[in-house]
Amino acid sequence: MDVGSTAFILAASMAVALMIPGLALFYGGMVSSRSVLNMIMMVFGAVAVVGVLWTFFGYSMVFGDSYGGLGLLGNITEYAGLGSFVAGDEAATLPPALVAIFQALFAVITTALIAGAVSDRVKFGPWLLFAGLWGALVYFPVAHWVFAFDSADGSVIGGWIANKLGAVDFAGGTAVHMNAGVAALAVVLIVGKRTGWPKQARPNSLPFVALGAGMLWFGWFGFNGGSALAAGNSASIVMLTTFNATCAAILSWLLVERLRNGHATTLGGMSGAIAGLVAITPACGAVSPLGALAIGAIAGAICPLAVSLKYKFGYDDSLDVVGVHLIGGLAGTLLIGLFGVEDAPSGQAGLFYGGGFTLLGKQAVAAAAVLAYSFVVTLLIAFVIQKTIGFRLSAEKEAAGIDIVEHAELAYDLEGKPHAPGTAPTPAGVIASAERLTAEAVPSTTTS
Amino acid sequence: MDVGSTAFILAASMAVALMIPGLALFYGGMVSSRSVLNMIMMVFGAVAVVGVLWTFFGYSMVFGDSYGGLGLLGNITEYAGLGSFVAGDEAATLPPALVAIFQALFAVITTALIAGAVSDRVKFGPWLLFAGLWGALVYFPVAHWVFAFDSADGSVIGGWIANKLGAVDFAGGTAVHMNAGVAALAVVLIVGKRTGWPKQARPNSLPFVALGAGMLWFGWFGFNGGSALAAGNSASIVMLTTFNATCAAILSWLLVERLRNGHATTLGGMSGAIAGLVAITPACGAVSPLGALAIGAIAGAICPLAVSLKYKFGYDDSLDVVGVHLIGGLAGTLLIGLFGVEDAPSGQAGLFYGGGFTLLGKQAVAAAAVLAYSFVVTLLIAFVIQKTIGFRLSAEKEAAGIDIVEHAELAYDLEGKPHAPGTAPTPAGVIASAERLTAEAVPSTTTS
Amino acid sequence: MDVGSTAFILAASMAVALMIPGLALFYGGMVSSRSVLNMIMMVFGAVAVVGVLWTFFGYSMVFGDSYGGLGLLGNITEYAGLGSFVAGDEAATLPPALVAIFQALFAVITTALIAGAVSDRVKFGPWLLFAGLWGALVYFPVAHWVFAFDSADGSVIGGWIANKLGAVDFAGGTAVHMNAGVAALAVVLIVGKRTGWPKQARPNSLPFVALGAGMLWFGWFGFNGGSALAAGNSASIVMLTTFNATCAAILSWLLVERLRNGHATTLGGMSGAIAGLVAITPACGAVSPLGALAIGAIAGAICPLAVSLKYKFGYDDSLDVVGVHLIGGLAGTLLIGLFGVEDAPSGQAGLFYGGGFTLLGKQAVAAAAVLAYSFVVTLLIAFVIQKTIGFRLSAEKEAAGIDIVEHAELAYDLEGKPHAPGTAPTPAGVIASAERLTAEAVPSTTTS
Repeated sequence: MDVGSTAFILAASMAVALMIPGLALFYGGMVSSRSVLNMIMMVFGAVAVVGVLWTFFGYSMVFGDSYGGLGLLGNITEYAGLGSFVAGDEAATLPPALVAIFQALFAVITTALIAGAVSDRVKFGPWLLFAGLWGALVYFPVAHWVFAFDSADGSVIGGWIANKLGAVDFAGGTAVHMNAGVAALAVVLIVGKRTGWPKQARPNSLPFVALGAGMLWFGWFGFNGGSALAAGNSASIVMLTTFNATCAAILSWLLVERLRNGHATTLGGMSGAIAGLVAITPACGAVSPLGALAIGAIAGAICPLAVSLKYKFGYDDSLDVVGVHLIGGLAGTLLIGLFGVEDAPSGQAGLFYGGGFTLLGKQAVAAAAVLAYSFVVTLLIAFVIQKTIGFRLSAEKEAAGIDIVEHAELAYDLEGKPHAPGTAPTPAGVIASAERLTAEAVPSTTTS
Repeated sequence: MDVGSTAFILAASMAVALMIPGLALFYGGMVSSRSVLNMIMMVFGAVAVVGVLWTFFGYSMVFGDSYGGLGLLGNITEYAGLGSFVAGDEAATLPPALVAIFQALFAVITTALIAGAVSDRVKFGPWLLFAGLWGALVYFPVAHWVFAFDSADGSVIGGWIANKLGAVDFAGGTAVHMNAGVAALAVVLIVGKRTGWPKQARPNSLPFVALGAGMLWFGWFGFNGGSALAAGNSASIVMLTTFNATCAAILSWLLVERLRNGHATTLGGMSGAIAGLVAITPACGAVSPLGALAIGAIAGAICPLAVSLKYKFGYDDSLDVVGVHLIGGLAGTLLIGLFGVEDAPSGQAGLFYGGGFTLLGKQAVAAAAVLAYSFVVTLLIAFVIQKTIGFRLSAEKEAAGIDIVEHAELAYDLEGKPHAPGTAPTPAGVIASAERLTAEAVPSTTTS
Repeated sequence: MDVGSTAFILAASMAVALMIPGLALFYGGMVSSRSVLNMIMMVFGAVAVVGVLWTFFGYSMVFGDSYGGLGLLGNITEYAGLGSFVAGDEAATLPPALVAIFQALFAVITTALIAGAVSDRVKFGPWLLFAGLWGALVYFPVAHWVFAFDSADGSVIGGWIANKLGAVDFAGGTAVHMNAGVAALAVVLIVGKRTGWPKQARPNSLPFVALGAGMLWFGWFGFNGGSALAAGNSASIVMLTTFNATCAAILSWLLVERLRNGHATTLGGMSGAIAGLVAITPACGAVSPLGALAIGAIAGAICPLAVSLKYKFGYDDSLDVVGVHLIGGLAGTLLIGLFGVEDAPSGQAGLFYGGGFTLLGKQAVAAAAVLAYSFVVTLLIAFVIQKTIGFRLSAEKEAAGIDIVEHAELAYDLEGKPHAPGTAPTPAGVIASAERLTAEAVPSTTTS
């Protein structure tokens, strides 16, 4: 066992765990003050559901021996319950339980990313069901394709993208970001736009957005760095490229905004940070520090343009999961084909460094496969939920505010007046006044 | 020296340190907007006081050679000032200073946990005194019982629960959570209910509660994982069980709420996370991943019921320290007796895995001893403070809001108007209008 | 390569990265609700700019072979682009890319510290320019002086303070805190006071201040501990002294406040924590745990007095960067000369431990050099920016609130009403009503 590397992956796992509240606050700050709690709960709820499934069968579906050696799906019963990891395996470089917890966090966070697309308007129970089905039917198979490497002696067969195709995806440009991004598009097409869209409430707390982005940045070092699965030069380079891309993407997004709208915004700066992080995720072990600056700068310029597409095509991707994760992930995945350098950990040269078009072609195939599979299956899952138990909140409840109707709570109480238990605003009372609120929801051009 | 394990415990210590603001926000978000600062200050203040005492004599009381070999208290002067750790000890697996800082954080956080029970109503100075006395007279001895293992060569004698009794408490179900939980009950009995209780203000910021819970979750990985004191399979399994129990407990608490009240709340989800974390704390190295799911699910179902007891028995445990930490810690401590598996790090089989009732009996003895000692001594400390310098805030000051009267501050100013230094609301001015506020504190059934 | 130490420095780098949102929130919570976003953006923006420069030439200026062996500046082209680090260096104890990312975070955070002095009143574009120039002309040279050690074989020459002078600065009392603190003073002298100062808005969110302080404390363990550049006894001692000084400084600042003003405030407690952290930064590897308590206590008592100087001398250092970072850093740097112990990692005895005045003298020289260089060059940079593109916001825009005029955003929207895109408050609209706001800005002695 490699004690030092074990120490690092333990630390990296902890860091990734902070992405849970980080994502909850990043998303939660962007929505209306009447739907921030639901957003937070969608994140934590998805984490909880997929976390439980991971132990039951998720790990097996990802890292089990591939059925028929096809590289499509791992053996679902092979490690079911993960009980065999308790005793450890002294021959392994890393304890198997450590890989299990590190990768568990990838599964839960990827699923939670989708929540940002459907703010304000989906029922909480069906959301939890969606999260579980999506984890099982989309994430676990796709993660097998991308993250399960054949064992060194060839006795265990992993996923087709990682092994047969040989595309480069260091920490999840395809399996994590494009996967969640395209799933967000699919689910939004099923549940539809929010009432009154594109009219929408302003972010209830941009400081929360910045806090969440900063916490995500921190966690991402663990996410990307830990994907090296060892404490050494690879992880170190990854930390550096992850940092570089983020810095460049912040500046690049702010510049696009400044040129286009006249102002560099906080929302833009934070979105830029995430876009840079997304784009470098597949590429963090494949490019040089300057390549990372280039990828970050490109992602920070493309994504704000991609974000505008929702107004053009008319899909209500509330918090731009498509524009940032799908497009940013796609950009990073493809740009490896240009910026890959041979002496980087991933070891494959891209077009600009003498590698020709080969790598770019592989990257495109991997991207297309993940996009197609995830989009179709997610569409199907969301459709079935919508047609059976119902996914979308009723218009009256949406108008009343999802926090109060789904969770019987309001995010803030800044007055601090005492009240007897049960005398606070109730969902029923709030729904009753929803009509009035809806009437007020006409655009008001002056807000004090 | 084990460099890799040293690296991990350094990282784990850092993670545990983030529990300080995590706890401050978790508690701070739940209280009234007029008492959030006091809650935050109770947490940081307790940390500061106990942190200083730790260096003077706390470490010695916990890890010093047990007086008379009885396992009741470590030699208070043995390491006083911790100066002997500066030069290090190359023969030790971990630097002694590292164990000192890691365990210092356990002491300070355990003490700070108690603050959640006494929101809105205790004077800040006496609270600091309480924290110091409680650390010295309750935590340090109990931590000796539970965390001080006999040295391998038998030359240094540790605590009776860890060695003579041989109960399993991997990371502090007894010494940390039941200890703080029962102390919370004791101090609440002394300082009494808040005026108007059970009428109370709504949480001022549930997003803070979620943020705090997420930060606590992160830190808990260091708390539990680091308790393995090595980077290896034990720490890895502990991370996995800690994650599993939390996920299960979130879902379980939400289900109980949904069935009982019709809504799954954010407060419930976050309380579930903490309940799961509390319950798995003693058990994280003793059970399988499925066992961890079971313990989490059970804790997430029991604790919301336990929380209701305060209304039945009439004690004002403001933020449910008793219901979550005492009951959750007790559940986890006892459930080891059922779910313990022999190949787990703790190495003891429970009733369900062929171990008979032996382990369960040991666990019950450890739990009872900690509960009895902590309750009695805490009651005494709180009583003496109340009868001498006074613990409880006056009714007028409580009505005015503890932030302004104790700290001369208000948590938020969302207007942002300039004012001259000294012209902001003053404690005196606020107390003057406390009567009016108290009059307004009748239940209002309609809140806009 | 030392895998265990690599693991620790990877983890420490991650921790330091959390200081970015930590600082943003710590500062952001203290300012007006109409300037919190600008404060956050000044922090993130400075990080992004200096982060990019670091890869281009910053690392080289700090760690390149000293021009002429003088110890004044590293060879700016030596590692330009950091591409040579991709392949790694198996002979090195730590991967060079790891040192690069760890030290990158020092550079970006130091620059961001300055932002706290100039809240509410500087244009965002010029601020980014300032950050880049300051990083290049002040931080990179000074970090070379302090952090670049000569190579073991003498083939690479480092900075004059670290080697020729031999002053002790474990983690940046001079290069980080005094450097940023005196720069803050210089830039404040150029941009001037806020309109109406010392009238000012109350902190918009003290819970954010506490959250930020807690996150900074966490990150500081990585900052100071990681400066040991190895997982071992040095890092462990550093963690302990860092913790001790912070606890003591919290209590000490609160005591000063209580005696002087009658109340211990949250702002005071959190400022105390930072003051303790600042003061222990140079000393964390040089003193005993008791010495750390002493340094923390002294810093926590001196800094609140130093903070008051701005009213006496009439400079508007908005968030007390001078009082806390300059004075706290100076205190810690000089107190090493008193409290240094020989068996600590830094290995030099101070006056109280038999070392005579030698060390104190060296410390004073290092401090004076950094103060003089940083003050003069910063004054020049700020002056040139002010006289060319302009640094200071116009009075009308300042009155309107910097968030809306510079970023076209407001921090909070607690009403949650929908509005059409573009119908929210616009900078133009807000500036139009700035006159009214300015008129209202007279001191109001009663605030509900």
